[in-house]
Amino acid sequence: MTRTFIIIGNKTATGKFSLDDLSGAAGRMDLLCRAVGAAFFLSHDMRRDVIVYLVLLGPPTPPRVVRIAGPEVRNMNPDERNIAGLVRKALMVEDIDPGWSKSSPGILVSSKGLKELLDEVAPSPGPSTVYLREDGTPIGKAPLGKDVTFLLGDHMGPTPEQEALLKGWNTVSLGKKSYHTDHCIAVVNHEIDTREI
Amino acid sequence: MTRTFIIIGNKTATGKFSLDDLSGAAGRMDLLCRAVGAAFFLSHDMRRDVIVYLVLLGPPTPPRVVRIAGPEVRNMNPDERNIAGLVRKALMVEDIDPGWSKSSPGILVSSKGLKELLDEVAPSPGPSTVYLREDGTPIGKAPLGKDVTFLLGDHMGPTPEQEALLKGWNTVSLGKKSYHTDHCIAVVNHEIDTREI
Repeated sequence: MTRTFIIIGNKTATGKFSLDDLSGAAGRMDLLCRAVGAAFFLSHDMRRDVIVYLVLLGPPTPPRVVRIAGPEVRNMNPDERNIAGLVRKALMVEDIDPGWSKSSPGILVSSKGLKELLDEVAPSPGPSTVYLREDGTPIGKAPLGKDVTFLLGDHMGPTPEQEALLKGWNTVSLGKKSYHTDHCIAVVNHEIDTREI
Repeated sequence: MTRTFIIIGNKTATGKFSLDDLSGAAGRMDLLCRAVGAAFFLSHDMRRDVIVYLVLLGPPTPPRVVRIAGPEVRNMNPDERNIAGLVRKALMVEDIDPGWSKSSPGILVSSKGLKELLDEVAPSPGPSTVYLREDGTPIGKAPLGKDVTFLLGDHMGPTPEQEALLKGWNTVSLGKKSYHTDHCIAVVNHEIDTREI
């Protein structure tokens, strides 16, 4: 069973950025780093059944996708600054192209955009490809299946053009309150953990 | 209805610390800052019905308690560095004593310890004073009441001496997997949100 999280950062940096201003100059890199932490970290352990794709669409060289794979990733700590350092290293790989270039163990980078990524990792949308939105099916009633792919936006949410790519996806809700991306992931991981027992 | 979160940082700094090394030198200040974020932040909104107490017990001058009150707090952003800056400012207030000294809007600081804090904010433990631990009652079956107080540890959990102060508390579990403090808070907030609808 694999849990895949695709997280869109519409304003998030695609080149070198300062670790001292993740929220401002790096276009909410802080939010994406906390989302990575929520996807992977247990107390004193890591979820090895998780893969995260960060879709970065801010300046200077959009698009970029950073892929972080639980089975192989090493030397990642849960603080924002550490995760941001790993993402920054990936963005500084030379000659990034639409294929996957290796940055560090378990971390790859590509110049593909959201459409190309979805064609690759979610070519057949259905109940197990889940778009989290406030007006969807309550998660408690949603069949999620064994291998689940979740798509989440940043603080602005996906654009209409991005939403148009999600035809056939299962729209699932965590309730009427709108949560931060990392908190959504924590709730989703708990929901799946509870079902697996 | 108020949600109160008491979070213990057994190694967390009680004096000036560097914002560039929250995880190491500041004794997992990163973890406590993410916990504060999870307690307060909604997407584009703050939970005004939340109060957080950070019980800081690391060097150089333990104990310290920093109180952050949702109804009054201002200028708090969800990134670790911003929250850490507010906590650091509180720890640098002059002449901190067992009473509450004001640091900034909604943020107070005290030299009281965990026992004195619990005597003040949870003098009558019962179903609504909740200690989150893996072997407790599953949260779905736990009556939580209207005003709920949660106690959570840091990455090491409470010490045996601290646990001894929790007689009469309601031990509640989020499942068999052990989560980071901030992820526990995200799950708990979602659980209460769901009940309130």
